[in-house]
Amino acid sequence: VDTYLAVDIGGTGIRVAIFPEEGTQALAIKRISTRGAGTPLERFYALLNEMWPVNDHVRALGVAAAGPLDTRAGIIYSTPNIPGWINLPLQSMLEERHHVPVILGNDANLAAVGEWKYGAGRDHKDLVYLTISTGIGGGVILNNELMLGSRGLAAELGHIVVDPSGPTCSCGLRGHLEAMASGTAIGKRAAEQLAAGRKSILAKDPPPTAKDVSIAAYQGDALAVEVLTKAATILGKTLADFAHIFNPSIFILGGGVTQAGPIWFDAVNAALKTGVYDPGYLIDLKVVQAELKDNAGLLGALALARQLAHK
Amino acid sequence: VDTYLAVDIGGTGIRVAIFPEEGTQALAIKRISTRGAGTPLERFYALLNEMWPVNDHVRALGVAAAGPLDTRAGIIYSTPNIPGWINLPLQSMLEERHHVPVILGNDANLAAVGEWKYGAGRDHKDLVYLTISTGIGGGVILNNELMLGSRGLAAELGHIVVDPSGPTCSCGLRGHLEAMASGTAIGKRAAEQLAAGRKSILAKDPPPTAKDVSIAAYQGDALAVEVLTKAATILGKTLADFAHIFNPSIFILGGGVTQAGPIWFDAVNAALKTGVYDPGYLIDLKVVQAELKDNAGLLGALALARQLAHK
Repeated sequence: VDTYLAVDIGGTGIRVAIFPEEGTQALAIKRISTRGAGTPLERFYALLNEMWPVNDHVRALGVAAAGPLDTRAGIIYSTPNIPGWINLPLQSMLEERHHVPVILGNDANLAAVGEWKYGAGRDHKDLVYLTISTGIGGGVILNNELMLGSRGLAAELGHIVVDPSGPTCSCGLRGHLEAMASGTAIGKRAAEQLAAGRKSILAKDPPPTAKDVSIAAYQGDALAVEVLTKAATILGKTLADFAHIFNPSIFILGGGVTQAGPIWFDAVNAALKTGVYDPGYLIDLKVVQAELKDNAGLLGALALARQLAHK
Repeated sequence: VDTYLAVDIGGTGIRVAIFPEEGTQALAIKRISTRGAGTPLERFYALLNEMWPVNDHVRALGVAAAGPLDTRAGIIYSTPNIPGWINLPLQSMLEERHHVPVILGNDANLAAVGEWKYGAGRDHKDLVYLTISTGIGGGVILNNELMLGSRGLAAELGHIVVDPSGPTCSCGLRGHLEAMASGTAIGKRAAEQLAAGRKSILAKDPPPTAKDVSIAAYQGDALAVEVLTKAATILGKTLADFAHIFNPSIFILGGGVTQAGPIWFDAVNAALKTGVYDPGYLIDLKVVQAELKDNAGLLGALALARQLAHK
């Protein structure tokens, strides 16, 4: 029978899954850690060999990887936590090795594709996906097409300035959305406020994580509510900017921070509503939580592989 | 012979032009003012009747208009300075009246299309166009397709927050790009500085316009240089955000403010260069002035009309 392989490569783990012709239920799936005996590439190759279906035909292979890569050229420019992967032509390497069509995609982009094809974004032509966890990544579907840009570097939605006097981002620049609304930003801001002498139950077990802040907020802790609401408000205002830029019919929010519940979600929605300059942007606009969780990138890689095979 | 009609409707003037099968040289063009005897719609209809080719076949009609409109539905939601045009189904009205295919487009979007097809953006698949004059408008081409959004309201690039503590925008919200980098913003900021007692040759003939500021800057006036450079720097930083968002291969800048010359342009470029978080965004990236000037919208309408006829 015909099958598809989907791969998700991250700095900590590599997953390979086999899917049938249709549906999102994997026939087999295995995860290994990226580090261990051998290089990450050797480990990845060994996992592929082990998982490769012997009796079934593989129609295409889709690969989701973190970091800047060019899906059209099939090259990974660099990927976090795998220092050796610089300008790696992984697509042609895999095509030569396995003699099947291969397609690469940025993990946040592919998570957007996964949600669009199989998750919360079904039936939407224009969607903006954001993953809000330690960092903030994005993926955008416009008129049923993944936005890639001229070199495949588009949709880095965490790296736009939302406050020029804001804190420094992981990328080194100032006031980016990621530096103000990510899980990391929430933890840091809470820690700063504690250091400045603010009273809070968060002081018991420093440094606070975003999860600690969110739990404390639901216990009524004033500082935690303030920090969580501030991060959500900044995100919601930025969603209003994205509405003006993309005019999507749905925002899909994934990543750990979206587990923070209604205090966070209500503040996001309120800031979005007051942040659009014309009510037309809110007509039929949905803001929802991602459905596919950790499988979004893998299912996006599956979607691209199926698309590739049917071209 | 076959011809195409292109129309540009603004709050002050309405233009109708007749174009041949190919090229951008109009066979005939006429402009009337939007206000005068009769309603704007009556005046527009009369101009269309007058210009309509008697012996030639009109293959399609393209219309550029300001303000929020839905190109897919063919409806103008509203348009500045023509108060009666609310939810106007202009496409079907014109199709019924003239029995030719009609397409509407937002003027900044169509200016982007015009530059892409016939101007500075030829041979680019991913481009961002900005018009910087009294306001700031935008149009984006991605993978050779005009970005429209779910209701045709996308690419309002002037209405995104660049500084939450910035001045109030024409739309009523705070710190938008338009409120900080448009011609209006340049004039206002210079006036504020004069009112605060700053010395400048601009004090001779208040209130200063953006053009006054730019002329004074080239005469070495310190305040004028400062105000012009600041507006340009804010624009350039925002171009860096747009690079992260769209990863275009070209930024095309149109509108009166782009006439301000190298003091302005150099500051835009410098801020863009320092504002991207990865040098990959700058590879093969061009920043250029628009080529089509006042005809960009009209030529964009022509491009859409030709596209429509060849579908």
